This record gives sequence, structure tokens and C-alpha cells, in this order.
Amino acid sequence: MRNILIIGAGRSASSLIEYLLNKSEAENLHITIGDLSPELARRKTKGHPRATAIAFDIFNEEQRHKEINRADIVISMLPASLHYEVAKDCIRFKKNMVTASYISPAMQDLDDEVKKNNLIFMNEIGLDPGIDHMSAMKVIDEIRSQGGRVILFESFCGGLVAPESDNNLWNYKFTWNPRNVVLAGQGGAAKFIQEGTYKYIPYNKLFRRTEFMEVEGYGRFEGYANRDSLKYRSVYGLDDALTLYRGTLRRVGFSKAWNMFIQLGMTDDSYIMENSESMSYRDYVNSFLPYHPTDSVELKMRHILKLDQDDIRWDKLVELDLFNPNKKVMLRDATPAQILEKILSDSWTLSPDDKDMIVMYHKFGYELNGEKKQIDSTMVCIGEDQTYTAMAKTVGLPVAMATLQILNGNIKTPGVQLPIYKEVYNPILKELEEFGVTFNEKHVPYMGYNPNNVAS
Amino acid sequence: MRNILIIGAGRSASSLIEYLLNKSEAENLHITIGDLSPELARRKTKGHPRATAIAFDIFNEEQRHKEINRADIVISMLPASLHYEVAKDCIRFKKNMVTASYISPAMQDLDDEVKKNNLIFMNEIGLDPGIDHMSAMKVIDEIRSQGGRVILFESFCGGLVAPESDNNLWNYKFTWNPRNVVLAGQGGAAKFIQEGTYKYIPYNKLFRRTEFMEVEGYGRFEGYANRDSLKYRSVYGLDDALTLYRGTLRRVGFSKAWNMFIQLGMTDDSYIMENSESMSYRDYVNSFLPYHPTDSVELKMRHILKLDQDDIRWDKLVELDLFNPNKKVMLRDATPAQILEKILSDSWTLSPDDKDMIVMYHKFGYELNGEKKQIDSTMVCIGEDQTYTAMAKTVGLPVAMATLQILNGNIKTPGVQLPIYKEVYNPILKELEEFGVTFNEKHVPYMGYNPNNVAS
Repeated sequence: MRNILIIGAGRSASSLIEYLLNKSEAENLHITIGDLSPELARRKTKGHPRATAIAFDIFNEEQRHKEINRADIVISMLPASLHYEVAKDCIRFKKNMVTASYISPAMQDLDDEVKKNNLIFMNEIGLDPGIDHMSAMKVIDEIRSQGGRVILFESFCGGLVAPESDNNLWNYKFTWNPRNVVLAGQGGAAKFIQEGTYKYIPYNKLFRRTEFMEVEGYGRFEGYANRDSLKYRSVYGLDDALTLYRGTLRRVGFSKAWNMFIQLGMTDDSYIMENSESMSYRDYVNSFLPYHPTDSVELKMRHILKLDQDDIRWDKLVELDLFNPNKKVMLRDATPAQILEKILSDSWTLSPDDKDMIVMYHKFGYELNGEKKQIDSTMVCIGEDQTYTAMAKTVGLPVAMATLQILNGNIKTPGVQLPIYKEVYNPILKELEEFGVTFNEKHVPYMGYNPNNVAS
Repeated sequence: MRNILIIGAGRSASSLIEYLLNKSEAENLHITIGDLSPELARRKTKGHPRATAIAFDIFNEEQRHKEINRADIVISMLPASLHYEVAKDCIRFKKNMVTASYISPAMQDLDDEVKKNNLIFMNEIGLDPGIDHMSAMKVIDEIRSQGGRVILFESFCGGLVAPESDNNLWNYKFTWNPRNVVLAGQGGAAKFIQEGTYKYIPYNKLFRRTEFMEVEGYGRFEGYANRDSLKYRSVYGLDDALTLYRGTLRRVGFSKAWNMFIQLGMTDDSYIMENSESMSYRDYVNSFLPYHPTDSVELKMRHILKLDQDDIRWDKLVELDLFNPNKKVMLRDATPAQILEKILSDSWTLSPDDKDMIVMYHKFGYELNGEKKQIDSTMVCIGEDQTYTAMAKTVGLPVAMATLQILNGNIKTPGVQLPIYKEVYNPILKELEEFGVTFNEKHVPYMGYNPNNVAS
């Protein structure tokens, strides 16, 4: 019997656990699921005979040592900042490890030691990061194997609401951590390269410089730039690509409307608002508008945002019940961003029957035999319900598959890894197709930003 | 002979030193001027027999102890972060101390010890902070002595170019630290109260929500909000005032034009631009604009900023030579803000014959015998030349006067102080008038934001 220890039984662990339990007979696995809440862990086992749920406190050293020592491989689904504790013990007890999180500098520093012990610490093998790496590197490697040179790489991903559940004016609901959505784009200018030129977009323009994309069968989306599009430049071997752009997908119109909150200062998380607890939604809005004894909050809002009478963005604001003088914020010592999150959660929380949707869109521009070509690769995944969401599937399944591949000796390269090599992405992308996570690759005319090499 | 030690002989020390040297015979003073650059210190003595210039390193403990011990009072004109070293030694050797800087938390913590030793550490006695405190408290105390209740306090100050030297489209030149001008307003939303309502303005709207003011003989100015208008609320005894607003003055039109830089992201100081050294001014601008193979930087700029063909802001940009493809930035590893400062310095540096100007504007709204009234108090000070600038005068003279008043026992209250009491502001405001720093107080109709108490 091979023992798998899963630490953390939160939302993203559902599909992961289900996958491993389904394989547990054939693969001779025993799954131990540890969570601060033993009840949450227990529910995820669904009474399966090959699963054990335990109360697990990552800061309880004795228990941590015992459980990690007893496992053959460890999956950490903890918040990213807590992986390091697990990683040190995995080295100590010589266990392989899998996470869906970005490799932190501390984790990266363990690389030598991990290699010395011939261990595999596979990270960034969820959705984004994860499936994005794998699906991109597959196409990039194919282009290279034909002798092509990648000159453009753009990559977008978004967690959205499925079309059948898309029933508000924003075409958006929270399918993951709402706080991250409210704070998206903050903390520095977005940086990328277009046709060899470095470009920078400040936060206050970020949601106004979007790019449209069509996904067959799903209509139009828009993408806004992520903070650092150059992060994987060297990792992907794209140091001489002329265009590198990574972004987040939303339905068309979301960004222009979201920008209203940014312009008003409602996404600011750096200060606490006076009297936030007793404030009404209307008071909250009025805090960002000039004082006037008689002009309405509505008119002041239209004026400062320059909204015409027939601007659809107005209806989006009204839909959120932003001008309600009776609804109270009821959050003590809250920042503008925390209050906005609360207000949005009233409207954007998934209903019990709602489904979520993941959309990924890559563009690969390349030169082959003197010709410029382009491949667009898209993936859409719709959730089954509120447990087996598209997010839980796309984050958890690659983690689960990588775990089994490592356990079975098919993934062999030791070190602190991310899934950019064939050894990893080929079997996993293939298996993901069985779960409906398929990429639609299409040859399209090269678009780029200067397809005809016009001199500027 | 009474010994005064002045540490720091920079720009703001000129009028300060001149004042004390002029009084040195009558008051029996000897002035020691210490600076890292003994040459700079020497030039400020002008060969006066009662002055000694010395090379002074604040981090040389032995010298610091010797010189502070030898002095009867110490003036620190060092950067604010260095006052603390001086302050600790002033306690040790039982010396009074004067600075023009904001009281830091560390300085405030010395209050008990300073009082125990019956010492006076007078701070915030320059221009802003300094003359603003004194001139405001004088009027506030007068209103109170008549039985009035202050319901509105607004206070604005600006360092500008004198009308006779005002010859660019921005009506602005750097008269103080350019870096502070470029970074002004960053680091959090501006907070203030209007008619009892807390209001917040984010950075990206800060320069779009200005207020106009007329100063007799000098025309119109505009004010944008400082970060924290509530800082002196309790200190001034204004806890129940309905409106509190502090701001910075510019000539009309400056803020709307400055906002272009903010919108483009050019004032960002948080990241280093790639290839900043070899970049042209035009390249710099283009970094903030979308790529296009043929559209000009000019058209992209007009488009993103929505500038009509006849918008005066366009001429302001052209005046700065922003679109020059031949002028190089020549700053290695520079942030957008550092590069903008460089570009602006080409155009906004004072010429040898230019003069600067300080403008201060207070509004006091109050209730007296059931009636609402208002006093507007304004001060304009024009510099003499590039040494005895209005800034050097208004910062240095109050420091010098306070020093002499403390030395002569006229200012008596011990502790870490700021100049909000009659004992301090009465003699100093009076003496400042002899130097042309006069406030013009005028009774005007109460304006406020809701003069007729209309219910909203």
C-alpha cells in the first residue's frame, strides 16, 4: 500500500481527492487527508475505505513529523506561505512533494538539497500556474521541433461564471477568492513587451487597455494585463521573443465598469474608513464624492465618472444596490476594498445551482521557413456543481495526476520543479482530456502587432 | 557670549544665519555653523567675526558631543530623520533645541525627559509646518476669545515661482526639492472632512478635485488636498469642526495638466525601467503607450489622454520637449518618477535671475452669536534672489527668531513643542512682519459648503 498525505482539504482539494480515491484500488493507494477541521477532511473522504481523515495542525511539529514520515508522497494544498514547513520535513524524511503554488524564493533555495536527496518537489501544477505552463510548453516545443522560432507569446486565463449561470449585467460572479479579485492589478505597473518594446501600464489605466478574444462557441472575452508578463520568459526559453503578454480574462465590458471602482478609490486596501460599521452602502459611495448639501449621490457619481444617461455602466452600479441608504456595511474598521468585496458578494456569490467556468487562451506567433505563422490554443472547462467546480477540477486534477506519476516513477527528474518538460506535461495533458480539459489548437493568420514589418 | 550651534548649512539656512549674524553684536551671540561641507558653511558666514564655520559630521560622536556641549542652544537643519541623534545629546548636555521639521514619533517620545530637564525642544517652526501653525492659531484663538466656535478650517500653502519670473505654460518652477513635487500625493488616499462627512480622494483623482482661491493682487490659485487634513485636528482644538481641509497651492491649470503624468504612470517610483539610460525622452513617453507600427507617439498620446487638437495641455507637454527623439534620459536604472523629474528639471529650474514665491491661504469659518462668519487670511512672500529665497526666508526666519526668544527666556514652556501657543506665535508673527511676511486678514461672507444649512 502506498500512502499519500494530503494536507489541506479546502475547495481546491475536492477533485484532487476524488481522483485519487477512484484510483486507490487499482493503484493500491491509501489517502490520508489532514485539515485543521477534521469534519471538512472527513466529508471529503466520503467514507471511502482507503481514506483516513485526521485533524492536522501544520504548526504541531510532532504530528507533522509523524504523518510526513508515514507517507510515501505529500501533497500540500495549504496557503502558499505554509509549504516551506512541509518542504523541510519532506527533505528530512526523504519524501517527494507536490503543490499547486508558485515556487517561492525559499522553496527555490531548497533545490540543491532536494536534488542531493534525489527527491522531486513538483510545484505550480494546478491551473494557473499549472495547466498554463503545460499547454504552452507543449505548443512551444512542437514549434521548435519543426525548426520554428517563437516571436510572440500571449497567455490569458480567467475564472468566470458558466454561460448557463451568467445572469447579471457584469457577466461575472466570484468563483474563487473574492479578495484577490478586488485587489487585482494593484502593487505596481503591469509590464510586458510588444514588438520588442517594453510597455508599462499603471493601475489606473490597467482596465482600460484590454484586448478582445473570441472563443469558438463561447463568444467574446477581454483580457487585461497581469503584473509581470516577463516572469517565465527565460523558463520558457523566450528571451528573444518580441511580444510577451500575460493577462486575465473577463467578459467584455467588465473591465470598463470595474475601472469605475478604481477611479473612485474603492479598491484601496491601505487605510481604514471612519465609522465603516454603521455606514450605509450609500454613505460608502458618498465618501468618495465631493460634499454637496442638495445634489444627490447619484448625480455626483454620474458627474465624476462622466456617465451619460444611457451608459450601461450605470445599470451595473444600480444592480449592485450601491445607492441603498438602508443596507449597512456592518464591517468594523474596514478598508474601502473590504467594503467593496462585501457589497459585491451580495450580488456576485454563486447560487447553489450555479456553475463556474475556466477559460484559457494562448497565442503563439512564430517564424518558420521565413514565414510568420500563428497558433491559437483555447480551453474551456465548465464546473459540475459547487463542489466539483471547474476551478477545483483544473487545479486539483493535475496535482493528483502528477502525484501518481511521481509515485509510479514516470516523472523522474529530481529538484524543485515546475511542469515545463515533456516528461510531465505529455501524460498529464493527455489524461486531462479524459476529464474534459481539452485544448483546441487552431492555425490562424499571424496577427502580432506589426504583421507586415512596417517601419515605424 | 552665547553660543548657537547650527547643524546643516543648506539652502534653507541662508536667511536663518543672516538674521542671527545681524543680531549677534546686539545680542552678544557667537554662531557656529557646522556642515559636512566646511566650504558651504564658510560661505554662509560671509567672514563675519562672530561666526565660525566647521566641518561637521553628525555621525562623529566625539565631535557631536563636543560641539553640542559647547553650545547654549542647538539648531538642527539636518534632514528630519537625523534630528534624533542631536536631540539625545541635547538632553545629555541640557541644551535647548530648535528644528523646522515635523515632530517624529521618536522625538515625541522624548517629551517626558525633555520636561524633566526643563528643556525646550521647539519643532515645526519653519514655513509649513511653522508659519501655518502660528498664523492659524492666532486667528483661532482670537475667534475663541470673542466667544466664537470654529466650524470650518481650510489651509493651503504653495512654493511657486514669482509672477515676474513666471514664464512657462505650467506657471511653475521647482523652488524646493523636485523629487517631493513629482511624488506629491502618493502613498494613500487624501482624507478630510466636509460638513461633518469624511471624504477620501484616491491619487488618480487628487489633481482633478481642486478648489480655486483668489489672492488680492496675485490672481487665482488652485489647491489640491494633502494626504491627511486631520493631522492637527486635536492639536488646534478643532475636534468638533465640520470642515477640515489642508492642501497645496498651484497656479490654475497646473493640476489638470499634472494629472496627465499620473494617468500615464510617469510619477511611479516603485519600479526601474528597462534601458532607462539609453532611452530618449520620446522612448520614455512611448513606454506608457500601446505599441503601433505606424501611429505616432503624438497621436497615441492625444488619444489615450483624450486631448482635443486645441487643448492647452498639449502645448504644456510640447513645452517640456517630451517628444524629442534625440534627447537621452541618461539615468541608469531609473524609475519613471526619476526620469520625469529629470525631464521637468530641464524646463522648470530657476534661472539665475528668477525669484520664488510662497503663498499661504487660510479660511476660518465660525459661529458667533448665532451668526456664521468667515475670515480669510493670506500671505504672499517673494524671494530676493536665489540665496535669500522666499522659501529660505519663511523657513529660516521663524527658526532664528524662536532660537533667540528661547535664549532670552521669552519662550519658557518646556517639552517637545510646536508653535501653537501665544507665547511663541505672538512675538514671532510680529517680528516676521518687519521682514515682509505679513498676513492679510479679511472678513468675508461665510462660504462653507452648506452656508444656509439646507438639509441634504
